[in-house]
Amino acid sequence: MSAFGPTVDAAIARVREDVARLHGELTRYGLVAWTGGNVSGRVPGADLFVIKPSGVDYANLAPDNMILCDLDGGVIPGSSGSERSPSSDTAAHSYVYRHMPGVGGVVHTHSAYATAWAARGEAIPCVITAMADEFGGPVPIGTFAIIGDDTIGRGIVETLTGHRSRAVLMQNHGPFTIGKDARDAVKAAVMVEDVARTVHLARQGGELIPIPQAAIDSLFNRYQNVYGQAPQGTLS
Amino acid sequence: MSAFGPTVDAAIARVREDVARLHGELTRYGLVAWTGGNVSGRVPGADLFVIKPSGVDYANLAPDNMILCDLDGGVIPGSSGSERSPSSDTAAHSYVYRHMPGVGGVVHTHSAYATAWAARGEAIPCVITAMADEFGGPVPIGTFAIIGDDTIGRGIVETLTGHRSRAVLMQNHGPFTIGKDARDAVKAAVMVEDVARTVHLARQGGELIPIPQAAIDSLFNRYQNVYGQAPQGTLS
Amino acid sequence: MSAFGPTVDAAIARVREDVARLHGELTRYGLVAWTGGNVSGRVPGADLFVIKPSGVDYANLAPDNMILCDLDGGVIPGSSGSERSPSSDTAAHSYVYRHMPGVGGVVHTHSAYATAWAARGEAIPCVITAMADEFGGPVPIGTFAIIGDDTIGRGIVETLTGHRSRAVLMQNHGPFTIGKDARDAVKAAVMVEDVARTVHLARQGGELIPIPQAAIDSLFNRYQNVYGQAPQGTLS
Amino acid sequence: MSAFGPTVDAAIARVREDVARLHGELTRYGLVAWTGGNVSGRVPGADLFVIKPSGVDYANLAPDNMILCDLDGGVIPGSSGSERSPSSDTAAHSYVYRHMPGVGGVVHTHSAYATAWAARGEAIPCVITAMADEFGGPVPIGTFAIIGDDTIGRGIVETLTGHRSRAVLMQNHGPFTIGKDARDAVKAAVMVEDVARTVHLARQGGELIPIPQAAIDSLFNRYQNVYGQAPQGTLS
Repeated sequence: MSAFGPTVDAAIARVREDVARLHGELTRYGLVAWTGGNVSGRVPGADLFVIKPSGVDYANLAPDNMILCDLDGGVIPGSSGSERSPSSDTAAHSYVYRHMPGVGGVVHTHSAYATAWAARGEAIPCVITAMADEFGGPVPIGTFAIIGDDTIGRGIVETLTGHRSRAVLMQNHGPFTIGKDARDAVKAAVMVEDVARTVHLARQGGELIPIPQAAIDSLFNRYQNVYGQAPQGTLS
Repeated sequence: MSAFGPTVDAAIARVREDVARLHGELTRYGLVAWTGGNVSGRVPGADLFVIKPSGVDYANLAPDNMILCDLDGGVIPGSSGSERSPSSDTAAHSYVYRHMPGVGGVVHTHSAYATAWAARGEAIPCVITAMADEFGGPVPIGTFAIIGDDTIGRGIVETLTGHRSRAVLMQNHGPFTIGKDARDAVKAAVMVEDVARTVHLARQGGELIPIPQAAIDSLFNRYQNVYGQAPQGTLS
Repeated sequence: MSAFGPTVDAAIARVREDVARLHGELTRYGLVAWTGGNVSGRVPGADLFVIKPSGVDYANLAPDNMILCDLDGGVIPGSSGSERSPSSDTAAHSYVYRHMPGVGGVVHTHSAYATAWAARGEAIPCVITAMADEFGGPVPIGTFAIIGDDTIGRGIVETLTGHRSRAVLMQNHGPFTIGKDARDAVKAAVMVEDVARTVHLARQGGELIPIPQAAIDSLFNRYQNVYGQAPQGTLS
Repeated sequence: MSAFGPTVDAAIARVREDVARLHGELTRYGLVAWTGGNVSGRVPGADLFVIKPSGVDYANLAPDNMILCDLDGGVIPGSSGSERSPSSDTAAHSYVYRHMPGVGGVVHTHSAYATAWAARGEAIPCVITAMADEFGGPVPIGTFAIIGDDTIGRGIVETLTGHRSRAVLMQNHGPFTIGKDARDAVKAAVMVEDVARTVHLARQGGELIPIPQAAIDSLFNRYQNVYGQAPQGTLS
């Protein structure tokens, strides 16, 4: 398999490794049940992405059985893992990669607290500083969409384009998150469940104190530019 | 022990292996406490099934101490593990195997969220797409029944025969799930707790958005026929 | 160390082993935080019991540092572990052993759901069959008592003597459980948290369906006499 | 690296070891998500403390990459780990060390239940004896503060100076805890989430029974002086 030349082949191998390993974070944080949920990662420098196969146990995921797709969601014939079907959410992932060039990773789960907000079609209000840091404000709702055509992908792209949040709660369905790479999208999937849970618990106990918009802006800007060991770009 | 001939003996060995191992999923997903809960699997090609012994620690379950029963729930004399008593729910499992020939696996737990719905005698409404996928609509309630005779088995069969759902919440008791084999029934047990939890959390926060029936039908049909690496049969 | 003769010494060694190991169930089921919670076991054939040391990490508990006490809660001088202080709940445990001769094990935790009922001084109503099986009815509340004298022990004994339940929720404090041995008391501690959680969740969602008293009686009697691999005695 | 002489260098090595290892308790108790949360420990006998680097995975924390700071929060040039940035909460930690000489450890998390109380700006009422033991009364709220200058540190110090509680819930943000050393502050972080959860659950079910002030005082005094294997000092 060197249909893409050594540079792209090496990039594919790295993304296969990352995407396979990052699925372990979904189980570690309890975001998925059975074979549900999926992570994908764009191959830098090529019109390709790598995604989980459909209906395979988390314990059996490995770089070799990740599936390589073009940006229309078609499996690359003869590539490692191509004898299996890709995730049933592949059309949604590919739609995002086609329409959001800054996105390098997409994650989907049915994590319980985030999906609970989605079942009410209610955005998560920004009442904790960790949410301002990570999402820059409320986490929005995307329209109801049936799996299997472009409606989910379109809903994600329409909601998140130009939005600070890297997470959208698709109504009655669950969260999709994006990031500059697969790891960044997985982080957003972990954090959206964390804030969905905390704000759910907070509201059960009484009235929430809003955070002033100026403070939200300041927290978001600082976190995007200062936190961690190197500046992080925002997604366009 | 080759009372059943080499083909059936080999099938028994495979089901013992599966049933023993699948109990590990009940603890992994936190569906059971102490020695509660049980999985059984029908032996293909024979009027036999394999079930967990009663009151034995999960850590000590192994193929050899699983118990082989006939379809009346009687322990097969002299078979491996036959010196122990089978699960106290054996009568319910055997009733299901006798009356639902398409069922190859049965699981029972007292998982917390599913049992909470059961304590109110309230079906779980279908407000998330994962529920439409997996159960094709609401998860129904079965009548209150005392353990020890056929009333539990009858309640399961009456509720699930001709129903899309592979899970029933027995009132004041807990979930029973069925599947084409033991693994499929365990998947249903994992998923029913997952949706019971998500819908519980969703409703705590306010009003739920229903999913239109046509969308539920479409999701269910698609998932039964397309998801995973090969088409799955529905249970008759 | 053979101050008690070889038979009692052997029994002490077995109880040390059991009590040390059984503490692992408290952490496995998430019933305790940091160094909180404690298990003790009576030494059969002697006026002695074995209990956890005070303020020691769960990871460091071992048969040798369990503490051997007489039935007044006094540490046996020179016995293994006697250089440490016993659990700060030792007075309560010893009071139970003195006044309930049928009790062979005592457990105390601050497990979250059970303690939540205790903070309201509200007994857990018997609305799930697993509760009827295990506790034979509601789990009762014991009076508010300050640690450090006999008031906790007295509260436990007054509440549980002649009661079907092996668990009492001490008001504003948390659950104490008893059993025929340490393992049986640990099982009761695991199960009381499990039912406290399930009934809490059930009631959050609406009105509970009571179980008729005759059905509770039938479930309790059956479980005490039939479940598991051998009949279990009830505690007097 | 022996800029501080052998005694202080040895103390630094011990604190690096402790602080790196204690971060494992934050993940074990589920108090943190992704790279959030941080522990620091003062170096006894020197105006120095050790803190977690910013944005590094918990799995990769080790004594060598902990960061050594002076009491103004400046990284000690050339010390092990100094090529990285310290935790983004370093200013708050250093403010506490400068203004509370009795404090030897500081911990910050966004643990879900404690942060839920913080999002309402509501102190946790003291209705369980474990809270009286550990915190001597309610866990207080600190004022809303934006990260990045001294306002968080000032809020912590103003709230906790002269207070029995070693935990403060910073409004809309989350808990900060202090202790005589890093381990003691981590214990407070574990316990504040535990009581935040239990009291949250308790109040969901109905009215709470208050504990009389005299009983709270008696529990607190006893626990500070008697519990564990040696007396513990309170923090001034």
